[in-house]
Order: sequence, then C-alpha cells, then structure tokens
Amino acid sequence: MKLFDYPLSGNGYKVRLLLAHLNKEYEYISLDILKGETRTPTFLDKNPNGRIPLLQLDDGSYLPESNAILYYLAQDSRYWPSSAIEQAQVLQWLFFEQYSHEPNIATARFWVSIKKIENTPFNAEMLSQKQIQGRAALEVMERHLQNRSFFVGDQYSIADIGLYAYTHVASEGGFDLSPYRAIGKWLDRVQAQSGHVTMKD
Amino acid sequence: MKLFDYPLSGNGYKVRLLLAHLNKEYEYISLDILKGETRTPTFLDKNPNGRIPLLQLDDGSYLPESNAILYYLAQDSRYWPSSAIEQAQVLQWLFFEQYSHEPNIATARFWVSIKKIENTPFNAEMLSQKQIQGRAALEVMERHLQNRSFFVGDQYSIADIGLYAYTHVASEGGFDLSPYRAIGKWLDRVQAQSGHVTMKD
Repeated sequence: MKLFDYPLSGNGYKVRLLLAHLNKEYEYISLDILKGETRTPTFLDKNPNGRIPLLQLDDGSYLPESNAILYYLAQDSRYWPSSAIEQAQVLQWLFFEQYSHEPNIATARFWVSIKKIENTPFNAEMLSQKQIQGRAALEVMERHLQNRSFFVGDQYSIADIGLYAYTHVASEGGFDLSPYRAIGKWLDRVQAQSGHVTMKD
Repeated sequence: MKLFDYPLSGNGYKVRLLLAHLNKEYEYISLDILKGETRTPTFLDKNPNGRIPLLQLDDGSYLPESNAILYYLAQDSRYWPSSAIEQAQVLQWLFFEQYSHEPNIATARFWVSIKKIENTPFNAEMLSQKQIQGRAALEVMERHLQNRSFFVGDQYSIADIGLYAYTHVASEGGFDLSPYRAIGKWLDRVQAQSGHVTMKD
C-alpha cells in the first residue's frame, strides 16, 4: 500500500495512527498542499477531489476520504466493533467529525498555524464563526465523554482515532482545551493505547 | 422506529427515501428547525448535537447523522454492497457528501430558499464561496459519472441516495445543473428506481 499524505494533516495522521496500531507496512508519499501538489493533473487523475490522504491499494486502485480509509483498514480488527448498532455509532461519530468538528477546528488550525490567512475583516469574522462552532463540537464531545472511556461501547475504535487527530492539536487553532476535563482524560487514554504514535513520528 | 425530521431537509429525505425502498413502517415526527425545535432541552437530551434527522430504534436508543442512519438501515439489503472495497467506496462518497457537497449546496439552498439570509456584504461573500465550492463538488461527481451508471460498482446504493438528496434540488441554492449532463442522466436513473419517493411524498 501507498499513502499519499501531507505530514501536518490530521486527516492523514488518522490513517498513520491506525496503520501503526495494525503494524502494517506502507510506502509514504509526502505532498506539500501549500505548493499545490494535490491539485496537479497527475494527482487529480488519482483523486479528482484533490485531497489527501489518499490510499493506493495493492491492486492499484485509490481510496480517498480519511474516514473511509479508516473503515477499510479497520475491518476484522479490534478497532471496528462487531454489532451493527455499534458500527453505526462509530460512523455517527466519524460523520460528526467531518461535518461539525473538522471544518471548524482543523480549518481554524490551518488558518492560525499553517497557512496563515490575511487579517481582513471577512477572514476575522470567518475565523470567529469557526471558533464558536468548534467549541460547540467540543461541548458535544465533552457531554458524551462524561461517563464513558471511549466514544462507542467503551472500546477504543476508529471513532476515537478519527476524533483524536484534530482534537489533540486544537490549541493550534486557538482553542483552549482546559475547560474540557472529560476530553482531557480521554486524550490521555488514547495516548496510552498500545502502538500509539504521535503526529510527528 | 421513529424518525425525527424536518420535511424540507435533504438529510432527512435520504432516510425517508431508503425507508421507502425498504418498505419499512415508521412513525414520523416533524420538527420545525426554523422555530428552534431541535435546540430545546428535550431534543438535546435525544441528540446533543441538536440536528435532524434522528432515528429512534425499537430499543429506545437514538441514532443521529443521516449517513450513519443510511448505513444502519441498509445492512443486509441490496443498497449496501458486500465487498469491503465497495463498502469503503460507498462510505467515501458519503463522506464526500458531508464534507464537500452538503455544506456548500445544502447551505446555499437553505440561505436562498428556506431561511433567507440578510443581504450583507459578508453574507454575499459567504454565499459566493459556497457556490464556487458547490460547483467544484458537482464537477467531481460529473467526472466520476462520465462512464458509470451509479457511484459504486454500477449498482444503485446508499451512496446514490446520499448524493441525490441535495443534488436534485441544487437549483434552489442557485446552481444551474444544465451543464452537468452525466449528473442529469444519473438523476433520471435514481428517479426510475423501484420504490422511489419524492421529497414531498
């Protein structure tokens, strides 16, 4: 397998973290999104949506979308539950991640710490809206984690991997995690999982 | 089962369309999002993220996120493929729908045709950005459908149901679908499926 990725991407890190847990070998191809390397004709032939991470399977086919890659790789492993309702709940949290969490927390991080955006009134208002909506997503997570160790069925799963990726670097988007006590304890539990790697490993 | 929904929601319509194909009975509970009926303490106890659609299962538990509901309901049906790679591809398109399509096409429709937003310079710029990004999502779909009947494995699946919901009403968000010939033919194929219902049925 080959993973096309950008090293600072949380979406890419999700896949790297699961591959580390699964102890799978893969070739790593680093692309610089700031230099437009995911918008070249060559890359668009691989993924017309022009995004990383992108997994190339051994048969040569390409699978984009970080959370679909997590689903594929986690089959028949301890990171994907066996009951239909728990499977649906894992996907519930992964859709929550892509709709309510990533567009706010990851985008704020990108603007504040990676590709610094120009300080125009429009951009300032956009960033402020993303920080409000990002805190709302953190509130939903905090409430859910009040009496749970992990997001689904009290077992570490790809729901946790998907949500950990951008939550643990939320401070880089201007989010203060200290009020979220349950999230803080959950981050510690994720980091204590066997085979854990950091974003920079 | 009970479906908590807002009748004009494309996310809710996905679930109604699949339930019609599956010929399943359910109780329909209509909530008005414009009146804040999904942000009451009673509803937030059911779904802390304050969104419809929300499915209550026969055991009393609640499942939010339209595409996670599609996954759950489609198990063991013709609308969910049997191979792991095709399953991952269905999820790929459902994550594409929630990340690259819905936030642009559905939100533009909401602002233009449902909860009309105030015409401020900030809102006009936001709408313009969503229309640019929405057209980019339509381009990705058009390219994929050039030589295919359906999104995955040449079989109608929940990937098609998920993408049909807001694509067929994209004109309500100011999108002109006439340049997208492959999408137009695909919309016809979806409407011709046995058990199809419209958003207003």
